[in-house]
Amino acid sequence: MASPLFLDPDRLFPADEKTRDLARELYTTVKDLPIISPHGHVNPQMLLDNEPFSDATNLFLTYDHYVFRMLHSAGIDLTKIGVGKSDPVDPRTAWRIFCENWRLLDGTASGYWLTHEFVTLFGIDEEPCAENADKLFDIIAEKLSTPEFRPRALFDSFPISVLATTDDPLDSLEYHAALAADETFTGQVIPTWRPDAYVNTRKPEWRSKVEALTASVGQPVDSFEGYLEGFRASRARFIENGAVSADFGVAHPLAVDMDDAELGALYHKAVHEGLTAEESDIFEGAMLFRFAGMSVEDGLVMTVHPGVYRNHNTESFTTFGPDTGHDIPVQTEYTKNIQPLLDKYGNDPRLHLVLFTIDETVYSRELAPLAGFYPSVFIGAPWWFIDAPDAVLRFRAATTETAGFSRSSGFIDDTRAFLSIPARHDMSRRLDSVFLARYVIEGRISRTAAFHWIKALTSDQPRKVFKLD
Amino acid sequence: MASPLFLDPDRLFPADEKTRDLARELYTTVKDLPIISPHGHVNPQMLLDNEPFSDATNLFLTYDHYVFRMLHSAGIDLTKIGVGKSDPVDPRTAWRIFCENWRLLDGTASGYWLTHEFVTLFGIDEEPCAENADKLFDIIAEKLSTPEFRPRALFDSFPISVLATTDDPLDSLEYHAALAADETFTGQVIPTWRPDAYVNTRKPEWRSKVEALTASVGQPVDSFEGYLEGFRASRARFIENGAVSADFGVAHPLAVDMDDAELGALYHKAVHEGLTAEESDIFEGAMLFRFAGMSVEDGLVMTVHPGVYRNHNTESFTTFGPDTGHDIPVQTEYTKNIQPLLDKYGNDPRLHLVLFTIDETVYSRELAPLAGFYPSVFIGAPWWFIDAPDAVLRFRAATTETAGFSRSSGFIDDTRAFLSIPARHDMSRRLDSVFLARYVIEGRISRTAAFHWIKALTSDQPRKVFKLD
Amino acid sequence: MASPLFLDPDRLFPADEKTRDLARELYTTVKDLPIISPHGHVNPQMLLDNEPFSDATNLFLTYDHYVFRMLHSAGIDLTKIGVGKSDPVDPRTAWRIFCENWRLLDGTASGYWLTHEFVTLFGIDEEPCAENADKLFDIIAEKLSTPEFRPRALFDSFPISVLATTDDPLDSLEYHAALAADETFTGQVIPTWRPDAYVNTRKPEWRSKVEALTASVGQPVDSFEGYLEGFRASRARFIENGAVSADFGVAHPLAVDMDDAELGALYHKAVHEGLTAEESDIFEGAMLFRFAGMSVEDGLVMTVHPGVYRNHNTESFTTFGPDTGHDIPVQTEYTKNIQPLLDKYGNDPRLHLVLFTIDETVYSRELAPLAGFYPSVFIGAPWWFIDAPDAVLRFRAATTETAGFSRSSGFIDDTRAFLSIPARHDMSRRLDSVFLARYVIEGRISRTAAFHWIKALTSDQPRKVFKLD
Repeated sequence: MASPLFLDPDRLFPADEKTRDLARELYTTVKDLPIISPHGHVNPQMLLDNEPFSDATNLFLTYDHYVFRMLHSAGIDLTKIGVGKSDPVDPRTAWRIFCENWRLLDGTASGYWLTHEFVTLFGIDEEPCAENADKLFDIIAEKLSTPEFRPRALFDSFPISVLATTDDPLDSLEYHAALAADETFTGQVIPTWRPDAYVNTRKPEWRSKVEALTASVGQPVDSFEGYLEGFRASRARFIENGAVSADFGVAHPLAVDMDDAELGALYHKAVHEGLTAEESDIFEGAMLFRFAGMSVEDGLVMTVHPGVYRNHNTESFTTFGPDTGHDIPVQTEYTKNIQPLLDKYGNDPRLHLVLFTIDETVYSRELAPLAGFYPSVFIGAPWWFIDAPDAVLRFRAATTETAGFSRSSGFIDDTRAFLSIPARHDMSRRLDSVFLARYVIEGRISRTAAFHWIKALTSDQPRKVFKLD
Repeated sequence: MASPLFLDPDRLFPADEKTRDLARELYTTVKDLPIISPHGHVNPQMLLDNEPFSDATNLFLTYDHYVFRMLHSAGIDLTKIGVGKSDPVDPRTAWRIFCENWRLLDGTASGYWLTHEFVTLFGIDEEPCAENADKLFDIIAEKLSTPEFRPRALFDSFPISVLATTDDPLDSLEYHAALAADETFTGQVIPTWRPDAYVNTRKPEWRSKVEALTASVGQPVDSFEGYLEGFRASRARFIENGAVSADFGVAHPLAVDMDDAELGALYHKAVHEGLTAEESDIFEGAMLFRFAGMSVEDGLVMTVHPGVYRNHNTESFTTFGPDTGHDIPVQTEYTKNIQPLLDKYGNDPRLHLVLFTIDETVYSRELAPLAGFYPSVFIGAPWWFIDAPDAVLRFRAATTETAGFSRSSGFIDDTRAFLSIPARHDMSRRLDSVFLARYVIEGRISRTAAFHWIKALTSDQPRKVFKLD
Repeated sequence: MASPLFLDPDRLFPADEKTRDLARELYTTVKDLPIISPHGHVNPQMLLDNEPFSDATNLFLTYDHYVFRMLHSAGIDLTKIGVGKSDPVDPRTAWRIFCENWRLLDGTASGYWLTHEFVTLFGIDEEPCAENADKLFDIIAEKLSTPEFRPRALFDSFPISVLATTDDPLDSLEYHAALAADETFTGQVIPTWRPDAYVNTRKPEWRSKVEALTASVGQPVDSFEGYLEGFRASRARFIENGAVSADFGVAHPLAVDMDDAELGALYHKAVHEGLTAEESDIFEGAMLFRFAGMSVEDGLVMTVHPGVYRNHNTESFTTFGPDTGHDIPVQTEYTKNIQPLLDKYGNDPRLHLVLFTIDETVYSRELAPLAGFYPSVFIGAPWWFIDAPDAVLRFRAATTETAGFSRSSGFIDDTRAFLSIPARHDMSRRLDSVFLARYVIEGRISRTAAFHWIKALTSDQPRKVFKLD
């Protein structure tokens, strides 16, 4: 028999009644505010086309590496659920596998979000299990066939105020343009400029990428000036289409100050001979430095997401492709690595630099001290594996005492899972309420301060940091 | 006057009544389950001979480096308590020193365990101090003289279901065999294969060790094939005697994929010329990789215990020998170091690789992400300095949100202190109950899930991870 | 309208009533004990001259980099508040800027301390804001003009028992001598020997510093013997003037064991040619080792404050000078770095070595294991960015289970902000009470132990560690 699935209205609030009551009071003031999502990975075409979602497996499983990686850890063959570039599977069969293994998600952030989605969106009241898999599949299918479950209707009902996507610098941005031009859609969907593939010379596609980039401004591939001009032109086009930020998924948050002659020579070598591993790192660091300079000029907010060993397992990469669950964090250093960039631009009010991490050790040691001094630096919300309740409270506890609340980015969902957006923002609002309530109860901040900051962290802060006003 | 010594029946449960009640309810379902101890350092001969323990000092002090290191930190000369290879001392005099310094253990895991042992096993109701030292010594002596305090009687009364020892690959395993053959003893005492001394070429005893190993299979010392064959034969013999796992106490969790020719040449050099420090590291890493391959073949679970600077103090090492309190942890890296091994064997269901750490920073950053993807990887229970209440709760909070409960090893006591085994397992069961209760109270998991996992973590999980069924 | 400013008498105590009650009970036993401040940066001349403090800006803002760095992070030009070597400003105007930005300090340690100071010393009952800035400035000015607010009167009223300053080895110590000779002042103000400027060969002033040092003992600058003799003579003079400790602000806690010939040659090279970056590190490490030897001879306690990237921003350094908010922590390693020093002197009862950190990761991994073995090693109280409520509780939780309470230094305020001293010590006493109360409530230590340790941590422990009796 299936166990009940229940969404506690006081979930995430601590056991202590006084703190719980104040947390609830704070949360109530922000729970219905529109969602600001300045960084994420939703596909804009989905919103343009506005087609119904196909089925539960497609919606919750096949594209969510947070979820299917846990199935993989239990020894389940991911080809059976059609992950990545493996062959398509029968969604109902895959859904059964998911339901049979629901217990694997107990205590995880994904389990928490899915419970939120199942209960609030689909009215499901049983924990998934082998016995009810088909029933749940059908309940979801029925809902998905209704107009309320079309992407745009969901977008409006969550409600989302601003949603940023993540895009290739040579992307046509046609979906963004079409959405902006569509008078029946009032949501704001904006692109984000992400040039990684044009900077990481180790990737096999690098050469073809920079050929296209330089060609886009009528320059030969080995023109370093053309390379920079291509980036500038692309950024300008993104800004015209509403972009407010540029994102960098680098191995290390390394910045290198290098003059045109030296960096141009390195670029030339990259194009004609290829770079050593060490030269590649330096090239990426030098380009990160240059992108900061471009941001000072054109105003794009920089977000940096470092510290991930991508594609840790060759067999999985070969079978399924990238982003299929085997990216593993590594230790990350910011104080020394990013110093040259901050030395030059750190005090410039035109630069907004949001530093993310999955290495929690840097919160109190590096990120809070940096953000508590440099007007350009903001501490990114907990990302990926640490975007989870206990980790979020650790983040606040590790950064607030040094940098207060004004230096954090506000919540960033960074998700591919469109339906999880409300669950994630709701989680963040609850946790900030819990943290602020505790500080009030412990006599550390005033009630006035707590009610000020819960609003600021939910809306004003992300708007300010991402220049959304 | 001595202070009362009291064992709170609700110890380790949090102050909040709701959480405390649920934690107690969960704990009650597992508190009497038999103990599964798949990794530890109890001497099997003690159980075979079944002689009475000699005295309190021998039992609680002389061999417990967790305890006597705190006395050393207070400036007490360890020769006065007969530690390691120093001369034997009068146990009553040494016991007085211990009792006088009881306050040093306040708040430590050892203080907590000893309190449990003193109260539950010996009925002691006063905190040790100068005044009651002799009285406590006598109380303990009297108990030790009774049949109920013989090792086997204690083994049955704890009760222990399975106890694994740690053994040299050339150990005769005679005690294990005799215990298994003894019909009057129904406990399961199994060996663990630990080849460190045969792999660490820096140790002075390495050469004689590998001579004996290769000779055991009739090969000359410089035969690399003989070296591997010696290991394989020894593992087979351990498996015949009930072994389920192989343990590796390496400096770093480094794995190196190296072919026979290259590794054989390195072995040859080690035998004939000796290796540089760097070559030694590579040799150890290459052998760890090979041992994973052997585990895939013969099924022995791999447990890895890295990250300790052994024998940090020369004077103490010279006076007392190894394992006398001056081993100090260092920072440890897993994501990159272990990648080659996981790249080859990480998805193989035949491999179980339990990664332990005393560097807490890797829990959320490396171990939980690895175990949440690779079916071979399990997160080892908090080890050594971090096998303590607050640290255990930090461990659960740092790993569960990424990897759930299914990827942890279950509790491992890893102890030399036989009498502390029930105290340690009881502590673990209480803490898991506390953690699960909090997640229920905070609306993060269902009651069904909590009752499922408290049982699983206590029994099913260690049985599954260590292939004990 | 201004919000009320309120100092909760139960501040920092947890919400749970039982724990709160016991924490309050523990705190009550120590809240009025005299302050022992064995390491800090108060100017002794201030106490000798005993002039009134000039104004609120000078007192709370201009010299407190914890506070003005947050203003800088908000984009406020620090020349407008007269920081460092920038031109003096109108204090009332600067104070307005501070009050307008009070919200930036919400949740920070500085906000907590300032609230304590505003309420307890000045009777302020409104949160600073734009509207009340002038009023608060005047309230503070009025108080500062009274005799009770002269430095010596405050010193007595806090009350401070011992206050250590931080001083240059060639400092005349005239203020300390005059204070000691002044029969109207009964407080104990003692110097601390800090030789950093004479050891860090990278600093431009190094050469002139060592010239003066060697000259002080009648030796030429390139005499290594003169260099060592200068240090010894200076230490002896400090000890005569009451010094109990020597402080070392090193980049890394590196110790190098190097003989006279080799180290003398390195010194010679430093004087005549200059050292490479690597040689500089080695020279500093070798001198740290030598200073440990001197401490074994003359008894000065060693305090080590490593792990800070000083002057991270060139523009700020040029405009404002050092100690103006842009020092950023880096990862720090102790186990390997300090090993040579501990190998030689770690078991010597004459050495007291207090290891501080702003890298929290080392508490459970390195510092607690080191201090739980070596009688010379004490764990320094949380320092700088982590001298804050949540961080202090993390520190206790990370160290106690391995090293108990006896191996911690007791509280060190390390402050330049004279008026914050009572707030900081009060915070520490409250937090230790909270931690001990939790351990009692969770059945981990006895009430006897808790009442013993709250007293010990407040008074006996710092007295013992700093040899103040």
